Amino acid sequence: MSRLLIVGSVAFDDLELPTGKHDNVWGGSASYASLAASLFTPIDLVGVIGEDFPDKHLQTLRGHGISTEGVERAAGKSFRWAGRYDATLSSRTTLDTQLNVFADFKPKIPASARRAPFVLLGNIHPSLQLEVLEQVEKPRLVVADTMNFWITGEPTALKKLLHHVDVLVINDEEARQLGEHHNVSRAAAAIRKMGPKHLVVKRGEYGALLFDPEGTFFAPAYPLEDVLDPTGAGDTFAGGFLGYLAHVDAKGGSVDRAAFRRAIVAGSAMASFCVEDVGPNRLLTLSGTQLRDRLGQFKQLVHVEHELDALSLLR
Amino acid sequence: MSRLLIVGSVAFDDLELPTGKHDNVWGGSASYASLAASLFTPIDLVGVIGEDFPDKHLQTLRGHGISTEGVERAAGKSFRWAGRYDATLSSRTTLDTQLNVFADFKPKIPASARRAPFVLLGNIHPSLQLEVLEQVEKPRLVVADTMNFWITGEPTALKKLLHHVDVLVINDEEARQLGEHHNVSRAAAAIRKMGPKHLVVKRGEYGALLFDPEGTFFAPAYPLEDVLDPTGAGDTFAGGFLGYLAHVDAKGGSVDRAAFRRAIVAGSAMASFCVEDVGPNRLLTLSGTQLRDRLGQFKQLVHVEHELDALSLLR
Repeated sequence: MSRLLIVGSVAFDDLELPTGKHDNVWGGSASYASLAASLFTPIDLVGVIGEDFPDKHLQTLRGHGISTEGVERAAGKSFRWAGRYDATLSSRTTLDTQLNVFADFKPKIPASARRAPFVLLGNIHPSLQLEVLEQVEKPRLVVADTMNFWITGEPTALKKLLHHVDVLVINDEEARQLGEHHNVSRAAAAIRKMGPKHLVVKRGEYGALLFDPEGTFFAPAYPLEDVLDPTGAGDTFAGGFLGYLAHVDAKGGSVDRAAFRRAIVAGSAMASFCVEDVGPNRLLTLSGTQLRDRLGQFKQLVHVEHELDALSLLR
Repeated sequence: MSRLLIVGSVAFDDLELPTGKHDNVWGGSASYASLAASLFTPIDLVGVIGEDFPDKHLQTLRGHGISTEGVERAAGKSFRWAGRYDATLSSRTTLDTQLNVFADFKPKIPASARRAPFVLLGNIHPSLQLEVLEQVEKPRLVVADTMNFWITGEPTALKKLLHHVDVLVINDEEARQLGEHHNVSRAAAAIRKMGPKHLVVKRGEYGALLFDPEGTFFAPAYPLEDVLDPTGAGDTFAGGFLGYLAHVDAKGGSVDRAAFRRAIVAGSAMASFCVEDVGPNRLLTLSGTQLRDRLGQFKQLVHVEHELDALSLLR
């Protein structure tokens, strides 16, 4: 039995990057999240693909310890997203979204994955996310992603879902929209009253914040000189985050506040790799040594050598 | 002899905040920076005020250990800025700028301040910043602020100044403009080739980055629930930063890389207080105990309890 169930999209992306155009790039929230999480723990992936989806990607997934038993192949084409990034990579425009086989997707969780203690609900319709939760048996930790499209379009279903979510992982803008406050700390307090005990706010190149019952934690993004493609960074973050927690649990560690903080750093490190190449390419070749080195760099990034309060501070 | 010389504007601000309108608020880059730095070290303030500037503010400065010998009172009105913040406090519009006595300002450094080892050049015309440096004797560390107005309007004077600056403190946008690259790490590398060995990039609610010969350091901003007025936060950061370094030096400590990192946190902590009240009000009442408590919160904010690499990370 694998320990982490990931549900979401498996797709093709047509990417217009400042450095060039790339068509038919393997994408989808569940692809990125699974590949990231697979460094830490075995995965059950649940999603839907069309007849056009190549077997080699499924083989790649399996090669990373990701069970594709729950990946349904349906008649028709795979989900496809096309987007254009601006020259600074800081904003993007959706050029086309084709739901294709995703339009009629009903997640079916394989028997072997129903008792997974860790569940990651990628960004799909909140009613589908709820359908996943109806099929699993008492997960220990449910992490969900969502987006502005569902926040404004499906508020009732989303609110219902949030009662069953332990950790909500969204970006800055989404947090402000859902929490109805521009101040992110106030928005976080409002969202945590809707159900999730923990809220992770992804801030792209500015890092990530964790709000929980005991306070706030912040992990920076790594300041990279070469960012090629931000696609999937958020999904990679979520996968790295929950993959790390599942790993800690598998090793007999405690999934406590300290583990959550480390998981945020692990997710940030994975996302910092993701953006270094087009699509999920960098995740496919990432080694454990490279991850450890990057984690060391993260530690250095925020490390303050001596206690600030050890000096007599004031004049 | 005081150890820190601060040159910049002493002014009135008319502020339109989402919470209300405040006229004739005491402001100016040198006011904020001096009040912040004064918690750590005695200050020599150099600037110009008009006949309308109340003695009580000068008395307040002196009460905080700030020498006002270098504050020249000129015929006419004080520098005045009027601005309106949007509802989210994340952007502001300048409604009016009246240079007044600042138009003809020529900084004159009092004899007692010419040997200050630490110099903070607030955001004024780069030629005036150069004139200050011509009057001081071999300062150990020169920190300068500037803004987009000078980056585009006075590039030659600014480039000349940068050869004499050890630490440039600017915001994200300014760094991208000056370094001519959207990627902040690449922009930082370009700017550091212009002269400053150290670059501090202020990112508002997202914190601050330090780029130096040995790498990159990041300190978050404190995620506050109540932000009332961001005016002066950047100047307060710079004052807290250099005030702390001057303090370390006065206590016989080493102004090394570790001290720089602690100084970034000290500046961030000071800025987090500044925004909690209108104008410099919060700085006026700030106690050493409150600062120490906030520094402890900053430490907690980024603290990761165990070594990430101590666990066998990978599956």
